[in-house]
Amino acid sequence: MQAISHKAVKVTNGFWQERQRLNADVTVRAVYDRFSDTHRFAVINPLWKNPFVRSHIFYDSDTAKWLESVAYVLDDNREKYAELEKLADAVIAQFVALQAPNGYLNSYYQRHFFRIPFLNRNNHELYCAGHLAEAAVAYYKATGKDALLKAAEKYLSYIRKRFIVQGNTGFTTPGHEEIELALWKMYELTEKETCKEMAEFFLEKRGRTKDKPIYSACNQRQTQSHVPIREQTEAVGHCVRALYLYSAMADMARINRERELFDTCKTLYQDIVTKTYITGGVGSDYVGECFTVPYDLPNKTAYSESCAAIALLLFSQRMLLAERDVRYADTVESVLYNTLLSSTSLDGKKFFYENPLEIRLAEPHKNTSNPHKERLPITQRVEVFSCSCCPPNVTRTIASVGDYLYTEDAENLYLHQFIGSRYTSGEGYIDIVTNYPADGIVRITGKNLSKKLWVRIPSWCKRYKVIVNGEERNIVAENGYFPIEESDFDCTLSLEMQPCFVRCNPLCVQNRNALALCYGPVVYCVEGVDNGCLDTLAVKQESVCSLAKGLTALPDIIVEGYRLSMSSTYGNEEAAEKTSLRFIPYFAFANRGESDMKVWIPAFF
Amino acid sequence: MQAISHKAVKVTNGFWQERQRLNADVTVRAVYDRFSDTHRFAVINPLWKNPFVRSHIFYDSDTAKWLESVAYVLDDNREKYAELEKLADAVIAQFVALQAPNGYLNSYYQRHFFRIPFLNRNNHELYCAGHLAEAAVAYYKATGKDALLKAAEKYLSYIRKRFIVQGNTGFTTPGHEEIELALWKMYELTEKETCKEMAEFFLEKRGRTKDKPIYSACNQRQTQSHVPIREQTEAVGHCVRALYLYSAMADMARINRERELFDTCKTLYQDIVTKTYITGGVGSDYVGECFTVPYDLPNKTAYSESCAAIALLLFSQRMLLAERDVRYADTVESVLYNTLLSSTSLDGKKFFYENPLEIRLAEPHKNTSNPHKERLPITQRVEVFSCSCCPPNVTRTIASVGDYLYTEDAENLYLHQFIGSRYTSGEGYIDIVTNYPADGIVRITGKNLSKKLWVRIPSWCKRYKVIVNGEERNIVAENGYFPIEESDFDCTLSLEMQPCFVRCNPLCVQNRNALALCYGPVVYCVEGVDNGCLDTLAVKQESVCSLAKGLTALPDIIVEGYRLSMSSTYGNEEAAEKTSLRFIPYFAFANRGESDMKVWIPAFF
Repeated sequence: MQAISHKAVKVTNGFWQERQRLNADVTVRAVYDRFSDTHRFAVINPLWKNPFVRSHIFYDSDTAKWLESVAYVLDDNREKYAELEKLADAVIAQFVALQAPNGYLNSYYQRHFFRIPFLNRNNHELYCAGHLAEAAVAYYKATGKDALLKAAEKYLSYIRKRFIVQGNTGFTTPGHEEIELALWKMYELTEKETCKEMAEFFLEKRGRTKDKPIYSACNQRQTQSHVPIREQTEAVGHCVRALYLYSAMADMARINRERELFDTCKTLYQDIVTKTYITGGVGSDYVGECFTVPYDLPNKTAYSESCAAIALLLFSQRMLLAERDVRYADTVESVLYNTLLSSTSLDGKKFFYENPLEIRLAEPHKNTSNPHKERLPITQRVEVFSCSCCPPNVTRTIASVGDYLYTEDAENLYLHQFIGSRYTSGEGYIDIVTNYPADGIVRITGKNLSKKLWVRIPSWCKRYKVIVNGEERNIVAENGYFPIEESDFDCTLSLEMQPCFVRCNPLCVQNRNALALCYGPVVYCVEGVDNGCLDTLAVKQESVCSLAKGLTALPDIIVEGYRLSMSSTYGNEEAAEKTSLRFIPYFAFANRGESDMKVWIPAFF
Repeated sequence: MQAISHKAVKVTNGFWQERQRLNADVTVRAVYDRFSDTHRFAVINPLWKNPFVRSHIFYDSDTAKWLESVAYVLDDNREKYAELEKLADAVIAQFVALQAPNGYLNSYYQRHFFRIPFLNRNNHELYCAGHLAEAAVAYYKATGKDALLKAAEKYLSYIRKRFIVQGNTGFTTPGHEEIELALWKMYELTEKETCKEMAEFFLEKRGRTKDKPIYSACNQRQTQSHVPIREQTEAVGHCVRALYLYSAMADMARINRERELFDTCKTLYQDIVTKTYITGGVGSDYVGECFTVPYDLPNKTAYSESCAAIALLLFSQRMLLAERDVRYADTVESVLYNTLLSSTSLDGKKFFYENPLEIRLAEPHKNTSNPHKERLPITQRVEVFSCSCCPPNVTRTIASVGDYLYTEDAENLYLHQFIGSRYTSGEGYIDIVTNYPADGIVRITGKNLSKKLWVRIPSWCKRYKVIVNGEERNIVAENGYFPIEESDFDCTLSLEMQPCFVRCNPLCVQNRNALALCYGPVVYCVEGVDNGCLDTLAVKQESVCSLAKGLTALPDIIVEGYRLSMSSTYGNEEAAEKTSLRFIPYFAFANRGESDMKVWIPAFF
């Protein structure tokens, strides 16, 4: 299958239109301002010599992702965001000016002269280069301007010379993967064989070279360097690195038509399924920000980095390109409506790096005589981090959400996500009008389509109704998709959306006997601000739920639950008082001050 | 009420006779041998100058508790254990020889000359002195030999001079309480007012002086020095220190007949009830080995120190002396049959310092790329610790278990614990013959009793039958005790003992929706060695249980439980396969190699 870019899919209505507007109008600018405050643009200005302003090993990647975000915003409406384009042009001009005559381009290494390039595997040079290349491709596609593209190509040539031709670098494969998928992107744009050669080089060398672990406390699994990529069977190590690698592997499998490599990706994907939070987050341990073992999904200490969720999105969408299996689209949807959104505050200005599934404010204060605190995620979003990879990763993803709607092959078009939009292809178009996931009604209108359209039925949906051109169809979905053969049609898809309590696999000891409330693809949570003490709340699988107006475009859910109590420490008589619980979408947590929060609620039995 | 010493209560049959024999025949000697290997006796030998053998700040307390254990063993059968008496005499002779002319006696300070006595509040000098005094009292009572008693009195005089008369010490109240209750013991033996004065001094000064926190990471709550004792309302800080303090406070309340101080103890006791594991253990955090907040009872990381359980025994029994409330005796029983016993291996030679309520061997290996381990209790008992306070604390407690059977006042005798024994008082005696807690049948025979006997009905027991002199009595227990008025009687008390699943207060988030199996006072657990993977096991409150022969004198319990599974990570369909689970007494865990273990089993719902 082929990807269909957001450039052909304009988000025109509903839930995502609002999110894209907030992203373009507020968030992209807020990220720019905070990056400006923290000198991320100053450090790439070769004239700006203040020795007290230091760059950081990942600053260029932050800046590049911001540029990429702007490119996608411009794809949507270049006139409206002309101001952003000006800002971006200025940033690009500085990158171009900073570039060394040999092509090297990295503000950290160039600013701090005692640093020798390509010696330290953990210093993110190739990672930053990858993001520069991705930004360059995006900006060129959006504006036709090729200054950054040329700079990126020149830098990649230098990288190729050093790593492949001369082989005189201190390591062979990057400590943080990213350049691999960027090279495939560059290859698909430019069709230059050197890009393919480089992507294959960095992928195939991994696990075969003598590159050392990136720091003393970790082993080779941290960077997926323990075995060659074709022998990898478990998702291990740093989640973002892992998923960027697997994404590039999936790219290679697709582009080179390598069935076996795709099967490796599939094995990894199946392992990841057992390591993914219900919110689409991954990363169970902050130490190494890494995958651990299957079904180890602690809630309070969940790392679940925003970038890792995005990386899972990237990998899942690539898997979907290779195999039309609804589970990949389900994962994309789960990330989109949960951890991707939770990463940003409802006002679009603040961010979580980590997205825990439980906050218990009393937790760090338990030991009153020896005040020590378990390391826990922060409980309030902030405007910028010193390592601020997540905010511009979120902005680029939201601005390009159109990438996730459709894929196609020679004869078929596949609709995966229900986002109010117009997709245009030659004379034909598809309009989607929907409030999804506020409700399950999706109106799909097709005109002059030259391919058969297949529409996804999400796995969470147990009942649905399809009306095409006024007639109800008795459809049977194949691998989670049903076809519409007509080239012109007006289809109303009604997905039955009922709040529904979900259990976790019993191998997950952290969620034993607890239930999570889902409404379609959206995971809900309770907060202390609505529900008081969360410790003693309980629900039944069959607890009555009703929808209520809430603080987002989606309904809150009122659940007839229980508050438990017991007069002794141990005993048989537990009192259960009926109480109304207010659940809000998980992504909206921590928007009303510090509060306890919980996704998994104990079952009342 | 008055205590009745084990000297009047000989354990003659049943469960505790076996434990006492093992203790006297094996454990006391094993502790001696390990202490000998680790030079604990060598360091008190003034002639033993090897500079590489260093004493430790708590070595003298270890040795003293061993001496106290021997004294209680001799109380039981002096002839049989003449060998132990010889060993003890030799140790005492060395203590006497080591004592400085001014009375000071501490192998650590005396061996390491650069140390200045009574400057460092955290160096356990007064703690060791307290244990020396307790050992001296016990040994004198057991043997009539007063060498150690004289040495202890001389040392206490010196302590009095320095702390009270001269007031020229580096601190006023000890960093580790213990001397307070030892002084009350000494006072009750010698009736010397200086002992009372000293006990009151150390108790009353606490929280009123400028003594610094004992280390930088803790605050005054760690040593219960945050407020004066009469203002203390929460059990805080290091559990052993706290409970030794509260025990001495209860002694003072009883001896000085201070109602208000007793009420303070009661408030503390009620707080402790919310901080006690179902196994009678206390101490929820290894950092500071301390009490935390109510209902914070983590299982895998439970500190639940053996010494802390013993300290809770001491405090509860003292509370029982002041107020005949069955809850105190219930706590004593809970400690006796669970954490006290679990501290020692079934062969009597190895010990736990910490007594966790869950072992999950896979836990420390979850992060495969950044191998780091959460600090967890050890999973196998060891023969000796560098800080080996627990083993001799256990031996002295088991040897003196007769202390916990009876209390008395002017007209009444109270039977609290069902231990096969003969209690003798003048012409009268009471024989108890029982296999309790293997079953609930307790035969109590009284002869020539001059006081009315009140017999406890444990709170865990919902149904019972009392037959006195062949006739069933329709009794109503008052505060958990029923009377037998006859001075000669033959009573059969049948406590209905059914395996029973217990819940935890819902405020305890760690045990939500889990059940613990109890059989009378005995808490049971499952081990991996019997049951395979414990993660996916579940039980129902009404699961059918049956008794089976096990590895201890108590039955194992076979429970018709469930093994759960789910084919996906999240979903609604959980499969439950019926399976037989073998539960063993908690105290017997970790006797068959390293194994997973769990007390709280998820409920199947």
